[in-house]
Amino acid sequence: MIVIGELINGTRKKVKKAIAEKDAEYIAGLAKKQVAAGADFVDCNPGTVGEQEVSDMVWLVETVQAVTDKPIAFDSPNAEAVRAGIAAYRGGSAGMINSITLESERLNSMLPVVKEADMNVVALALDDAGMPTAAGQREETAKRLIDTLVDAGISAEKIFVDPVIAPVSTQPEVAGHILQAIEAIRDYCPQCHITGGLSNISFGLPNRRLLNRTFLTLAIAAGMDSAVMDPLDKAIMAEVLAAEALTGKDEWCMNYITASREGKLDC
Amino acid sequence: MIVIGELINGTRKKVKKAIAEKDAEYIAGLAKKQVAAGADFVDCNPGTVGEQEVSDMVWLVETVQAVTDKPIAFDSPNAEAVRAGIAAYRGGSAGMINSITLESERLNSMLPVVKEADMNVVALALDDAGMPTAAGQREETAKRLIDTLVDAGISAEKIFVDPVIAPVSTQPEVAGHILQAIEAIRDYCPQCHITGGLSNISFGLPNRRLLNRTFLTLAIAAGMDSAVMDPLDKAIMAEVLAAEALTGKDEWCMNYITASREGKLDC
Repeated sequence: MIVIGELINGTRKKVKKAIAEKDAEYIAGLAKKQVAAGADFVDCNPGTVGEQEVSDMVWLVETVQAVTDKPIAFDSPNAEAVRAGIAAYRGGSAGMINSITLESERLNSMLPVVKEADMNVVALALDDAGMPTAAGQREETAKRLIDTLVDAGISAEKIFVDPVIAPVSTQPEVAGHILQAIEAIRDYCPQCHITGGLSNISFGLPNRRLLNRTFLTLAIAAGMDSAVMDPLDKAIMAEVLAAEALTGKDEWCMNYITASREGKLDC
Repeated sequence: MIVIGELINGTRKKVKKAIAEKDAEYIAGLAKKQVAAGADFVDCNPGTVGEQEVSDMVWLVETVQAVTDKPIAFDSPNAEAVRAGIAAYRGGSAGMINSITLESERLNSMLPVVKEADMNVVALALDDAGMPTAAGQREETAKRLIDTLVDAGISAEKIFVDPVIAPVSTQPEVAGHILQAIEAIRDYCPQCHITGGLSNISFGLPNRRLLNRTFLTLAIAAGMDSAVMDPLDKAIMAEVLAAEALTGKDEWCMNYITASREGKLDC
């Protein structure tokens, strides 16, 4: 499981305040804690707009890379903010652009950045038709987006397809649609990674962490190998190890047994 | 999810002692606690042999039905013990025989009891070839056993197929085999229930409850609708509700939301 640590996100109240006040200690602390807990990427989402977002992204990147060498995910729909973050970044192609879509405007603005950066990229299965609602729509859009990226010279190994995780509270069949899309994308592009904003599944419902980790187990079995998630949530990190042990991704359960010895499964 | 409460099992140390000493208070307490926690059946497994098992089964049945009206599952490979338990039982066809197999000796001794009792029956997918090891073996045996039972006049709704849950520690691919068998059995007999001794999956590994509940989520998605399990394990009961909400078995998540309000998901 490739964990994209989600906590540095300006739509979260405390993070918004820390960004506004340039509280580097708070942001650096979030970066270090996520890396210590197993994050493979540290997501940076300023949550602001326009010129403010551009300068906030640069500040986040500088603040995070001052305390960790783990790659950064530049999380914004704004190509200028992503471009500025990358310019301030020392990690080169190890980084991640989060995200590109097939929406005309976003594709036109972000594709040149993606081609130039030669780094990992989250490919969110959205086009100008808006949020997917029908079965089959996610994988159809994802396949076109994968083709577009591969045609542009991006190698499949760098593409992290996001099937658009949406709330089960507003559409009961959505979890089934997403799992079906994950299976179809896994078949279509075995070299691609599959990721997603996990916590969207539980939006509007109580006990969200329980739903998040239960859904992640189903998604791992379907072929997902990454998630934008909270690595400080011990219960979900433990369930990921259990799911990998049960789905042949951790043969003889060696990672599971090691994690147990380290006390990481007690939750 | 039809929960078969597993705790009254003579292979567990304290239960073995309680049965030996005829400690009715302890056994009755286990029955009441399981029912309060959501058990649909109270499993009674004396864990002894021969004539002792017959009298122990009768005592367990009398002790349990003195404190609850929930149906009892008569858990023994010994047809005489099951027959004696049924004779002492007041619940009639609501009860459950656990279990019959396609092993010649067990089939010959247990099928007359099953036909006569007209109650629910666990159909364990074993034949004289022994424990399944190859992919496809579980569903093949299960289908033959379903056919045998239906031919004998047992209605499909009363058959609880058990695909033989075995330890992932000794065969890494076993979880995949079981999930594939569940899907195949669900297709073959939509009216049948599918159950299993859940905790077998984690035998020999640490943090067993974590593996048990993670596997149950995958099994529910594959089509399992019952399990022989510990209803006092709050975390697994919560994950069952989450899995049902995510797999379209709890539309609009009403059971999930109700359980949350009742504090049943806080674990």
